[in-house]
Amino acid sequence: MKSMNERRSIRQYQSKEIPQELLNELLTTACRASTVGNMQTYSIVVTRDAERKRRLAPAHYGQPMVENAPVVLTFCIDLRRFSQWCKCRHAQPGYDNAEWFVTGAVDTLLAAQTFCVAAEEKGLGICYLGTTTYNPEQIIEVLQLPELVFPITTVTVGWPAEQPDQTDRLPLEAVIHEEVYHDYTPADIDRLYAYKESLPENRRFVEENGKENLAQVFTDVRYTREAAEAMSEKLLDTIKQQGF
Amino acid sequence: MKSMNERRSIRQYQSKEIPQELLNELLTTACRASTVGNMQTYSIVVTRDAERKRRLAPAHYGQPMVENAPVVLTFCIDLRRFSQWCKCRHAQPGYDNAEWFVTGAVDTLLAAQTFCVAAEEKGLGICYLGTTTYNPEQIIEVLQLPELVFPITTVTVGWPAEQPDQTDRLPLEAVIHEEVYHDYTPADIDRLYAYKESLPENRRFVEENGKENLAQVFTDVRYTREAAEAMSEKLLDTIKQQGF
Repeated sequence: MKSMNERRSIRQYQSKEIPQELLNELLTTACRASTVGNMQTYSIVVTRDAERKRRLAPAHYGQPMVENAPVVLTFCIDLRRFSQWCKCRHAQPGYDNAEWFVTGAVDTLLAAQTFCVAAEEKGLGICYLGTTTYNPEQIIEVLQLPELVFPITTVTVGWPAEQPDQTDRLPLEAVIHEEVYHDYTPADIDRLYAYKESLPENRRFVEENGKENLAQVFTDVRYTREAAEAMSEKLLDTIKQQGF
Repeated sequence: MKSMNERRSIRQYQSKEIPQELLNELLTTACRASTVGNMQTYSIVVTRDAERKRRLAPAHYGQPMVENAPVVLTFCIDLRRFSQWCKCRHAQPGYDNAEWFVTGAVDTLLAAQTFCVAAEEKGLGICYLGTTTYNPEQIIEVLQLPELVFPITTVTVGWPAEQPDQTDRLPLEAVIHEEVYHDYTPADIDRLYAYKESLPENRRFVEENGKENLAQVFTDVRYTREAAEAMSEKLLDTIKQQGF
Protein backbone atom coordinates (compact mmCIF):
# COMPACT_ATOMS: atom_id res chain seq x y z
CA MET A 1 0.00 0.00 0.00
CA LYS A 2 2.82 2.37 0.90
CA SER A 3 4.36 2.53 -2.57
CA MET A 4 0.91 2.97 -4.15
CA ASN A 5 0.00 5.79 -1.76
CA GLU A 6 3.31 7.61 -1.96
CA ARG A 7 3.87 7.32 -5.68
CA ARG A 8 4.61 10.14 -8.10
CA SER A 9 5.37 9.99 -11.80
CA ILE A 10 9.12 10.03 -12.46
CA ARG A 11 10.43 11.81 -15.55
CA GLN A 12 14.17 11.86 -14.81
CA TYR A 13 16.12 8.63 -14.59
CA GLN A 14 19.60 7.50 -13.63
CA SER A 15 21.66 6.12 -16.51
CA LYS A 16 21.68 2.70 -14.77
CA GLU A 17 20.09 -0.13 -16.76
CA ILE A 18 17.19 -2.32 -15.61
CA PRO A 19 18.42 -5.95 -15.44
CA GLN A 20 16.61 -8.21 -17.89
CA GLU A 21 15.74 -10.61 -15.08
CA LEU A 22 14.01 -7.88 -13.06
CA LEU A 23 12.14 -6.63 -16.11
CA ASN A 24 10.94 -10.16 -16.90
CA GLU A 25 9.84 -10.66 -13.31
CA LEU A 26 7.76 -7.47 -13.46
CA LEU A 27 6.28 -8.37 -16.85
CA THR A 28 5.35 -11.81 -15.53
CA THR A 29 3.56 -10.15 -12.60
CA ALA A 30 1.78 -7.84 -15.09
CA CYS A 31 0.42 -10.90 -16.88
CA ARG A 32 -1.26 -12.08 -13.66
CA ALA A 33 -3.76 -9.21 -14.04
CA SER A 34 -7.35 -10.17 -14.82
CA THR A 35 -7.95 -10.85 -18.51
CA VAL A 36 -11.18 -11.47 -20.38
CA GLY A 37 -11.77 -15.20 -20.90
CA ASN A 38 -8.07 -15.67 -20.09
CA MET A 39 -7.35 -14.52 -23.66
CA GLN A 40 -4.57 -12.01 -22.83
CA THR A 41 -5.51 -9.68 -25.68
CA TYR A 42 -2.35 -7.57 -25.41
CA SER A 43 1.27 -7.39 -26.45
CA ILE A 44 4.06 -5.34 -24.88
CA VAL A 45 6.84 -3.94 -27.04
CA VAL A 46 10.08 -3.34 -25.12
CA THR A 47 12.31 -0.55 -26.46
CA ARG A 48 15.88 -0.32 -25.13
CA ASP A 49 17.70 0.59 -28.34
CA ALA A 50 18.72 4.27 -28.40
CA GLU A 51 18.11 4.67 -32.11
CA ARG A 52 14.59 3.28 -31.83
CA LYS A 53 13.82 5.54 -28.86
CA ARG A 54 14.99 8.45 -30.99
CA ARG A 55 12.52 7.39 -33.67
CA LEU A 56 9.69 6.98 -31.14
CA ALA A 57 10.29 10.38 -29.52
CA PRO A 58 8.51 12.59 -32.10
CA ALA A 59 5.26 10.61 -31.65
CA HIS A 60 5.47 11.69 -28.00
CA TYR A 61 6.22 15.33 -28.91
CA GLY A 62 9.85 14.91 -27.96
CA GLN A 63 9.15 14.46 -24.24
CA PRO A 64 12.67 13.77 -22.91
CA MET A 65 11.65 10.66 -20.91
CA VAL A 66 11.42 8.64 -24.12
CA GLU A 67 15.11 9.02 -24.91
CA ASN A 68 16.35 9.18 -21.33
CA ALA A 69 14.56 6.19 -19.79
CA PRO A 70 16.48 2.90 -20.01
CA VAL A 71 13.27 1.11 -20.99
CA VAL A 72 10.19 2.28 -22.88
CA LEU A 73 7.20 -0.07 -22.90
CA THR A 74 4.46 0.32 -25.49
CA PHE A 75 1.34 -1.52 -24.35
CA CYS A 76 -0.73 -2.67 -27.33
CA ILE A 77 -4.19 -4.08 -27.72
CA ASP A 78 -3.54 -7.37 -29.55
CA LEU A 79 -6.31 -9.42 -31.10
CA ARG A 80 -3.89 -10.71 -33.72
CA ARG A 81 -2.17 -13.47 -31.75
CA PHE A 82 -5.48 -14.90 -30.57
CA SER A 83 -6.91 -14.69 -34.10
CA GLN A 84 -3.82 -16.41 -35.54
CA TRP A 85 -4.27 -19.21 -33.04
CA CYS A 86 -7.91 -19.57 -34.12
CA LYS A 87 -6.95 -19.67 -37.80
CA CYS A 88 -4.28 -22.32 -37.12
CA ARG A 89 -7.04 -24.42 -35.47
CA HIS A 90 -9.68 -24.07 -38.21
CA ALA A 91 -11.74 -21.77 -35.99
CA GLN A 92 -13.21 -18.53 -37.42
CA PRO A 93 -12.20 -15.54 -35.26
CA GLY A 94 -14.54 -12.54 -35.01
CA TYR A 95 -12.41 -10.09 -33.05
CA ASP A 96 -11.89 -7.34 -35.64
CA ASN A 97 -14.56 -4.97 -34.30
CA ALA A 98 -15.26 -2.16 -31.81
CA GLU A 99 -16.33 -4.45 -28.96
CA TRP A 100 -13.02 -6.30 -29.02
CA PHE A 101 -11.03 -3.10 -29.43
CA VAL A 102 -12.55 -1.85 -26.18
CA THR A 103 -12.31 -5.22 -24.44
CA GLY A 104 -8.68 -5.47 -25.56
CA ALA A 105 -8.03 -1.97 -24.21
CA VAL A 106 -9.35 -3.03 -20.79
CA ASP A 107 -7.12 -6.13 -20.77
CA THR A 108 -4.08 -4.16 -21.87
CA LEU A 109 -4.48 -1.37 -19.33
CA LEU A 110 -4.95 -3.75 -16.39
CA ALA A 111 -1.67 -5.42 -17.34
CA ALA A 112 0.04 -2.02 -17.80
CA GLN A 113 -1.03 -0.75 -14.39
CA THR A 114 -0.10 -4.01 -12.67
CA PHE A 115 3.36 -3.65 -14.20
CA CYS A 116 3.61 -0.09 -12.90
CA VAL A 117 2.52 -0.92 -9.34
CA ALA A 118 5.01 -3.80 -9.25
CA ALA A 119 7.81 -1.66 -10.71
CA GLU A 120 7.23 1.07 -8.13
CA GLU A 121 7.25 -1.50 -5.34
CA LYS A 122 10.75 -2.47 -6.55
CA GLY A 123 11.92 1.15 -6.36
CA LEU A 124 11.65 1.95 -10.07
CA GLY A 125 9.95 5.11 -11.31
CA ILE A 126 7.45 5.23 -14.15
CA CYS A 127 5.67 7.77 -16.30
CA TYR A 128 2.66 7.16 -18.54
CA LEU A 129 2.65 8.89 -21.92
CA GLY A 130 -0.89 9.86 -22.92
CA THR A 131 0.55 10.94 -26.25
CA THR A 132 0.36 7.32 -27.45
CA THR A 133 -3.18 7.81 -28.79
CA TYR A 134 -2.36 11.25 -30.24
CA ASN A 135 -0.02 9.90 -32.92
CA PRO A 136 -0.67 6.17 -33.02
CA GLU A 137 0.20 5.89 -36.73
CA GLN A 138 3.80 7.01 -36.03
CA ILE A 139 4.18 4.44 -33.26
CA ILE A 140 2.68 1.73 -35.46
CA GLU A 141 5.29 2.45 -38.08
CA VAL A 142 8.29 2.54 -35.75
CA LEU A 143 7.29 -0.62 -33.85
CA GLN A 144 6.03 -2.39 -37.00
CA LEU A 145 2.63 -3.19 -35.52
CA PRO A 146 0.52 -5.30 -37.88
CA GLU A 147 -3.28 -5.50 -38.26
CA LEU A 148 -5.32 -6.09 -35.07
CA VAL A 149 -2.54 -4.60 -32.93
CA PHE A 150 -2.95 -1.06 -31.58
CA PRO A 151 -0.79 1.00 -29.17
CA ILE A 152 -2.96 2.24 -26.30
CA THR A 153 -0.42 3.54 -23.79
CA THR A 154 3.31 3.90 -23.23
CA VAL A 155 5.26 3.73 -19.98
CA THR A 156 8.82 4.94 -19.48
CA VAL A 157 10.67 3.09 -16.70
CA GLY A 158 13.93 3.62 -14.88
CA TRP A 159 15.67 4.26 -11.58
CA PRO A 160 14.51 7.66 -10.26
CA ALA A 161 16.89 10.62 -10.49
CA GLU A 162 14.36 13.02 -8.95
CA GLN A 163 11.74 13.05 -6.21
CA PRO A 164 9.12 15.56 -7.24
CA ASP A 165 6.35 16.66 -4.88
CA GLN A 166 3.27 14.50 -4.98
CA THR A 167 0.55 16.14 -7.08
CA ASP A 168 -2.86 16.98 -5.64
CA ARG A 169 -6.01 14.95 -6.15
CA LEU A 170 -9.66 15.99 -5.93
CA PRO A 171 -11.33 15.10 -2.62
CA LEU A 172 -12.62 11.52 -2.70
CA GLU A 173 -16.24 12.72 -2.69
CA ALA A 174 -15.62 14.29 -6.12
CA VAL A 175 -15.18 10.94 -7.87
CA ILE A 176 -17.42 8.64 -5.80
CA HIS A 177 -21.16 8.27 -6.29
CA GLU A 178 -23.27 6.28 -3.86
CA GLU A 179 -25.81 4.06 -5.70
CA VAL A 180 -26.51 6.51 -8.55
CA TYR A 181 -24.64 9.31 -10.28
CA HIS A 182 -25.10 12.60 -8.49
CA ASP A 183 -24.65 15.50 -10.82
CA TYR A 184 -22.57 18.51 -9.78
CA THR A 185 -24.10 21.88 -8.93
CA PRO A 186 -21.97 25.02 -9.38
CA ALA A 187 -21.60 25.06 -5.58
CA ASP A 188 -20.27 21.47 -5.67
CA ILE A 189 -17.79 22.43 -8.38
CA ASP A 190 -16.57 25.42 -6.35
CA ARG A 191 -16.09 23.27 -3.25
CA LEU A 192 -14.45 20.29 -5.02
CA TYR A 193 -12.01 22.37 -7.10
CA ALA A 194 -11.19 24.98 -4.41
CA TYR A 195 -8.04 23.27 -3.16
CA LYS A 196 -6.68 22.62 -6.67
CA GLU A 197 -7.35 26.21 -7.69
CA SER A 198 -5.65 27.54 -4.55
CA LEU A 199 -2.32 25.79 -5.12
CA PRO A 200 0.61 28.15 -5.81
CA GLU A 201 1.83 26.08 -8.79
CA ASN A 202 -1.60 26.27 -10.38
CA ARG A 203 -1.90 30.01 -9.73
CA ARG A 204 1.50 30.44 -11.38
CA PHE A 205 0.29 28.37 -14.32
CA VAL A 206 -2.65 30.74 -14.78
CA GLU A 207 -0.43 33.81 -14.59
CA GLU A 208 2.24 32.49 -16.96
CA ASN A 209 -0.40 31.71 -19.57
CA GLY A 210 -2.16 35.03 -19.14
CA LYS A 211 -5.50 33.38 -18.41
CA GLU A 212 -8.30 34.25 -15.98
CA ASN A 213 -8.32 30.87 -14.25
CA LEU A 214 -6.97 27.31 -14.27
CA ALA A 215 -9.82 25.84 -16.33
CA GLN A 216 -8.96 28.21 -19.19
CA VAL A 217 -5.36 26.98 -19.15
CA PHE A 218 -6.74 23.52 -19.91
CA THR A 219 -9.30 24.51 -22.54
CA ASP A 220 -7.29 27.23 -24.30
CA VAL A 221 -3.69 26.04 -23.95
CA ARG A 222 -3.16 22.45 -22.89
CA TYR A 223 -6.09 20.50 -24.32
CA THR A 224 -8.05 22.48 -26.87
CA ARG A 225 -11.16 21.39 -28.71
CA GLU A 226 -9.46 21.99 -32.03
CA ALA A 227 -6.55 19.65 -31.22
CA ALA A 228 -8.84 16.98 -29.75
CA GLU A 229 -11.10 16.97 -32.79
CA ALA A 230 -8.18 16.63 -35.20
CA MET A 231 -6.70 13.82 -33.06
CA SER A 232 -10.08 12.08 -32.83
CA GLU A 233 -10.37 11.93 -36.59
CA LYS A 234 -6.85 10.51 -36.96
CA LEU A 235 -7.41 8.08 -34.09
CA LEU A 236 -10.59 6.65 -35.61
CA ASP A 237 -8.92 6.37 -39.03
CA THR A 238 -5.93 4.57 -37.53
CA ILE A 239 -8.10 2.16 -35.54
CA LYS A 240 -9.88 1.29 -38.81
CA GLN A 241 -6.59 1.01 -40.69
CA GLN A 242 -5.39 -1.52 -38.08
CA GLY A 243 -8.36 -3.69 -39.00
CA PHE A 244 -10.87 -3.00 -36.21
CA MET B 1 4.45 -8.54 -5.12
CA LYS B 2 3.17 -11.67 -3.40
CA SER B 3 -0.52 -10.76 -3.58
CA MET B 4 -0.12 -9.68 -7.23
CA ASN B 5 1.63 -12.92 -8.18
CA GLU B 6 -0.68 -15.24 -6.28
CA ARG B 7 -3.96 -13.61 -7.19
CA ARG B 8 -7.00 -15.28 -8.68
CA SER B 9 -10.40 -13.82 -9.47
CA ILE B 10 -12.89 -14.47 -6.68
CA ARG B 11 -16.53 -15.08 -7.54
CA GLN B 12 -17.88 -16.33 -4.21
CA TYR B 13 -17.94 -14.05 -1.21
CA GLN B 14 -18.66 -14.27 2.50
CA SER B 15 -21.77 -12.37 3.60
CA LYS B 16 -19.53 -10.08 5.73
CA GLU B 17 -19.66 -6.39 4.76
CA ILE B 18 -16.70 -4.23 3.73
CA PRO B 19 -16.33 -1.41 6.30
CA GLN B 20 -16.87 2.02 4.76
CA GLU B 21 -13.53 3.20 6.15
CA LEU B 22 -11.63 0.39 4.42
CA LEU B 23 -13.46 0.97 1.15
CA ASN B 24 -12.66 4.68 1.28
CA GLU B 25 -9.01 3.93 2.02
CA LEU B 26 -8.83 1.68 -1.06
CA LEU B 27 -10.62 4.20 -3.25
CA THR B 28 -8.23 6.93 -2.08
CA THR B 29 -5.31 4.70 -3.06
CA ALA B 30 -6.97 4.10 -6.46
CA CYS B 31 -7.02 7.86 -7.06
CA ARG B 32 -3.21 8.00 -6.66
CA ALA B 33 -2.90 6.21 -10.02
CA SER B 34 -1.46 8.22 -12.92
CA THR B 35 -4.03 10.46 -14.59
CA VAL B 36 -3.75 12.56 -17.74
CA GLY B 37 -2.97 16.18 -16.91
CA ASN B 38 -4.12 15.39 -13.34
CA MET B 39 -7.70 15.67 -14.65
CA GLN B 40 -9.06 12.45 -13.06
CA THR B 41 -11.45 11.78 -15.92
CA TYR B 42 -13.38 9.05 -14.09
CA SER B 43 -16.15 8.46 -11.59
CA ILE B 44 -16.79 5.35 -9.52
CA VAL B 45 -20.34 4.33 -8.67
CA VAL B 46 -20.60 2.24 -5.49
CA THR B 47 -23.50 -0.21 -5.32
CA ARG B 48 -24.32 -1.81 -1.96
CA ASP B 49 -28.11 -1.74 -2.12
CA ALA B 50 -29.57 -5.22 -2.79
CA GLU B 51 -32.40 -3.91 -4.94
CA ARG B 52 -30.01 -1.94 -7.16
CA LYS B 53 -27.72 -4.96 -7.53
CA ARG B 54 -30.77 -6.96 -8.61
CA ARG B 55 -31.45 -4.33 -11.26
CA LEU B 56 -27.80 -4.33 -12.43
CA ALA B 57 -27.60 -8.11 -12.67
CA PRO B 58 -29.32 -8.58 -16.07
CA ALA B 59 -26.79 -6.26 -17.74
CA HIS B 60 -24.16 -8.74 -16.55
CA TYR B 61 -26.16 -11.75 -17.80
CA GLY B 62 -27.16 -12.65 -14.25
CA GLN B 63 -23.64 -13.58 -13.15
CA PRO B 64 -24.21 -14.37 -9.45
CA MET B 65 -21.30 -12.20 -8.22
CA VAL B 66 -23.33 -9.06 -8.86
CA GLU B 67 -25.97 -9.95 -6.31
CA ASN B 68 -23.70 -11.84 -3.92
CA ALA B 69 -20.81 -9.40 -3.56
CA PRO B 70 -21.19 -6.88 -0.74
CA VAL B 71 -19.91 -4.12 -3.03
CA VAL B 72 -20.17 -3.65 -6.79
CA LEU B 73 -18.06 -0.85 -8.29
CA THR B 74 -18.86 0.51 -11.74
CA PHE B 75 -15.87 2.41 -13.11
CA CYS B 76 -16.98 5.14 -15.51
CA ILE B 77 -15.15 7.37 -17.94
CA ASP B 78 -16.22 10.85 -16.79
CA LEU B 79 -15.55 13.96 -18.86
CA ARG B 80 -18.63 15.58 -17.39
CA ARG B 81 -17.26 16.80 -14.05
CA PHE B 82 -14.23 18.39 -15.72
CA SER B 83 -16.44 19.97 -18.39
CA GLN B 84 -18.82 21.33 -15.75
CA TRP B 85 -15.86 22.89 -13.97
CA CYS B 86 -14.78 24.52 -17.24
CA LYS B 87 -18.27 25.87 -17.87
CA CYS B 88 -18.46 27.29 -14.35
CA ARG B 89 -15.19 29.13 -15.10
CA HIS B 90 -16.15 30.56 -18.51
CA ALA B 91 -13.81 28.14 -20.24
CA GLN B 92 -15.00 26.21 -23.34
CA PRO B 93 -14.48 22.45 -22.86
CA GLY B 94 -13.77 20.26 -25.90
CA TYR B 95 -13.83 16.80 -24.38
CA ASP B 96 -16.88 15.30 -26.11
CA ASN B 97 -14.98 13.31 -28.73
CA ALA B 98 -13.25 9.99 -29.46
CA GLU B 99 -9.80 11.10 -28.26
CA TRP B 100 -11.13 11.97 -24.82
CA PHE B 101 -13.27 8.84 -24.65
CA VAL B 102 -10.11 6.76 -25.11
CA THR B 103 -7.99 8.98 -22.84
CA GLY B 104 -10.73 8.78 -20.21
CA ALA B 105 -10.78 5.00 -20.56
CA VAL B 106 -7.04 4.85 -19.85
CA ASP B 107 -7.45 7.04 -16.74
CA THR B 108 -10.39 5.02 -15.49
CA LEU B 109 -8.77 1.63 -15.93
CA LEU B 110 -5.54 2.64 -14.18
CA ALA B 111 -7.62 3.71 -11.18
CA ALA B 112 -9.68 0.49 -11.36
CA GLN B 113 -6.63 -1.75 -11.39
CA THR B 114 -4.94 0.19 -8.60
CA PHE B 115 -8.08 -0.33 -6.53
CA CYS B 116 -7.98 -4.07 -7.25
CA VAL B 117 -4.30 -4.51 -6.39
CA ALA B 118 -4.81 -2.61 -3.14
CA ALA B 119 -7.98 -4.57 -2.28
CA GLU B 120 -6.23 -7.90 -2.85
CA GLU B 121 -3.34 -6.78 -0.67
CA LYS B 122 -5.90 -6.26 2.13
CA GLY B 123 -7.20 -9.81 1.66
CA LEU B 124 -10.30 -8.95 -0.35
CA GLY B 125 -11.22 -10.82 -3.51
CA ILE B 126 -12.27 -9.15 -6.76
CA CYS B 127 -13.72 -10.10 -10.10
CA TYR B 128 -13.86 -7.92 -13.23
CA LEU B 129 -17.04 -8.07 -15.30
CA GLY B 130 -16.26 -7.67 -18.99
CA THR B 131 -20.00 -7.61 -19.59
CA THR B 132 -20.00 -3.87 -18.75
CA THR B 133 -19.40 -2.92 -22.38
CA TYR B 134 -21.83 -5.56 -23.69
CA ASN B 135 -24.91 -3.85 -22.30
CA PRO B 136 -23.78 -0.36 -21.34
CA GLU B 137 -27.21 1.18 -21.98
CA GLN B 138 -28.77 -0.94 -19.21
CA ILE B 139 -26.08 0.11 -16.75
CA ILE B 140 -26.44 3.75 -17.76
CA GLU B 141 -30.14 3.56 -16.96
CA VAL B 142 -29.81 1.81 -13.59
CA LEU B 143 -26.98 4.05 -12.36
CA GLN B 144 -28.48 7.21 -13.94
CA LEU B 145 -25.30 8.12 -15.81
CA PRO B 146 -25.65 11.46 -17.64
CA GLU B 147 -23.94 12.70 -20.83
CA LEU B 148 -20.13 12.40 -20.98
CA VAL B 149 -20.18 9.55 -18.45
CA PHE B 150 -19.70 5.98 -19.70
CA PRO B 151 -19.34 2.66 -17.80
CA ILE B 152 -16.15 0.92 -18.95
CA THR B 153 -15.71 -1.85 -16.40
CA THR B 154 -17.26 -3.29 -13.25
CA VAL B 155 -15.57 -4.93 -10.28
CA THR B 156 -17.29 -7.06 -7.65
CA VAL B 157 -15.53 -7.01 -4.26
CA GLY B 158 -15.83 -9.00 -1.06
CA TRP B 159 -14.17 -11.32 1.42
CA PRO B 160 -13.30 -14.56 -0.40
CA ALA B 161 -15.44 -17.65 0.25
CA GLU B 162 -13.44 -19.80 -2.18
CA GLN B 163 -9.84 -20.32 -3.23
CA PRO B 164 -9.92 -21.49 -6.84
CA ASP B 165 -6.80 -22.74 -8.62
CA GLN B 166 -4.80 -20.06 -10.32
CA THR B 167 -5.50 -20.00 -14.06
CA ASP B 168 -2.75 -20.53 -16.61
CA ARG B 169 -1.05 -17.77 -18.60
CA LEU B 170 0.77 -17.90 -21.93
CA PRO B 171 4.57 -18.06 -21.61
CA LEU B 172 6.02 -14.55 -21.25
CA GLU B 173 7.62 -14.74 -24.71
CA ALA B 174 4.11 -14.90 -26.20
CA VAL B 175 3.25 -11.34 -25.17
CA ILE B 176 6.65 -9.60 -25.25
CA HIS B 177 8.28 -8.18 -28.38
CA GLU B 178 11.85 -6.90 -28.32
CA GLU B 179 12.17 -3.61 -30.23
CA VAL B 180 9.61 -4.45 -32.94
CA TYR B 181 6.55 -6.64 -33.24
CA HIS B 182 7.47 -10.18 -34.24
CA ASP B 183 4.62 -11.89 -35.98
CA TYR B 184 3.68 -15.46 -35.10
CA THR B 185 4.38 -18.41 -37.38
CA PRO B 186 2.15 -21.50 -37.10
CA ALA B 187 5.07 -23.17 -35.28
CA ASP B 188 5.17 -20.29 -32.77
CA ILE B 189 1.43 -20.64 -32.20
CA ASP B 190 1.75 -24.38 -31.61
CA ARG B 191 4.54 -23.87 -29.10
CA LEU B 192 2.97 -20.91 -27.25
CA TYR B 193 -0.50 -22.47 -26.93
CA ALA B 194 0.66 -26.06 -26.24
CA TYR B 195 0.45 -25.81 -22.44
CA LYS B 196 -2.96 -24.14 -22.48
CA GLU B 197 -4.34 -26.74 -24.90
CA SER B 198 -2.95 -29.57 -22.79
CA LEU B 199 -4.72 -28.60 -19.55
CA PRO B 200 -7.36 -31.12 -18.39
CA GLU B 201 -9.94 -28.35 -17.74
CA ASN B 202 -9.52 -27.06 -21.27
CA ARG B 203 -9.75 -30.54 -22.77
CA ARG B 204 -12.96 -31.08 -20.81
CA PHE B 205 -14.24 -27.75 -22.12
CA VAL B 206 -13.66 -28.94 -25.71
CA GLU B 207 -15.38 -32.26 -25.06
CA GLU B 208 -18.41 -30.79 -23.27
CA ASN B 209 -18.99 -28.39 -26.16
CA GLY B 210 -18.54 -31.08 -28.81
CA LYS B 211 -15.79 -29.12 -30.58
CA GLU B 212 -12.56 -30.21 -32.24
CA ASN B 213 -10.32 -27.92 -30.20
CA LEU B 214 -10.18 -25.09 -27.66
CA ALA B 215 -10.05 -22.28 -30.22
CA GLN B 216 -13.41 -23.42 -31.62
CA VAL B 217 -14.94 -23.21 -28.14
CA PHE B 218 -14.02 -19.51 -28.17
CA THR B 219 -15.10 -18.72 -31.73
CA ASP B 220 -18.25 -20.89 -31.89
CA VAL B 221 -19.53 -20.84 -28.31
CA ARG B 222 -18.08 -18.22 -25.97
CA TYR B 223 -17.27 -15.22 -28.16
CA THR B 224 -18.83 -15.47 -31.60
CA ARG B 225 -18.45 -13.00 -34.45
CA GLU B 226 -22.21 -12.59 -34.62
CA ALA B 227 -22.49 -11.54 -30.97
CA ALA B 228 -19.46 -9.24 -31.17
CA GLU B 229 -20.78 -7.45 -34.23
CA ALA B 230 -24.19 -6.88 -32.65
CA MET B 231 -22.54 -5.62 -29.44
CA SER B 232 -20.17 -3.38 -31.41
CA GLU B 233 -23.07 -1.64 -33.08
CA LYS B 234 -24.85 -1.08 -29.77
CA LEU B 235 -21.63 0.02 -28.09
CA LEU B 236 -20.89 2.67 -30.72
CA ASP B 237 -24.50 3.90 -30.59
CA THR B 238 -24.39 4.16 -26.81
CA ILE B 239 -21.04 5.99 -26.82
CA LYS B 240 -22.60 8.51 -29.22
CA GLN B 241 -25.76 8.73 -27.16
CA GLN B 242 -23.66 9.62 -24.11
CA GLY B 243 -22.34 12.62 -26.02
CA PHE B 244 -18.94 11.46 -27.27
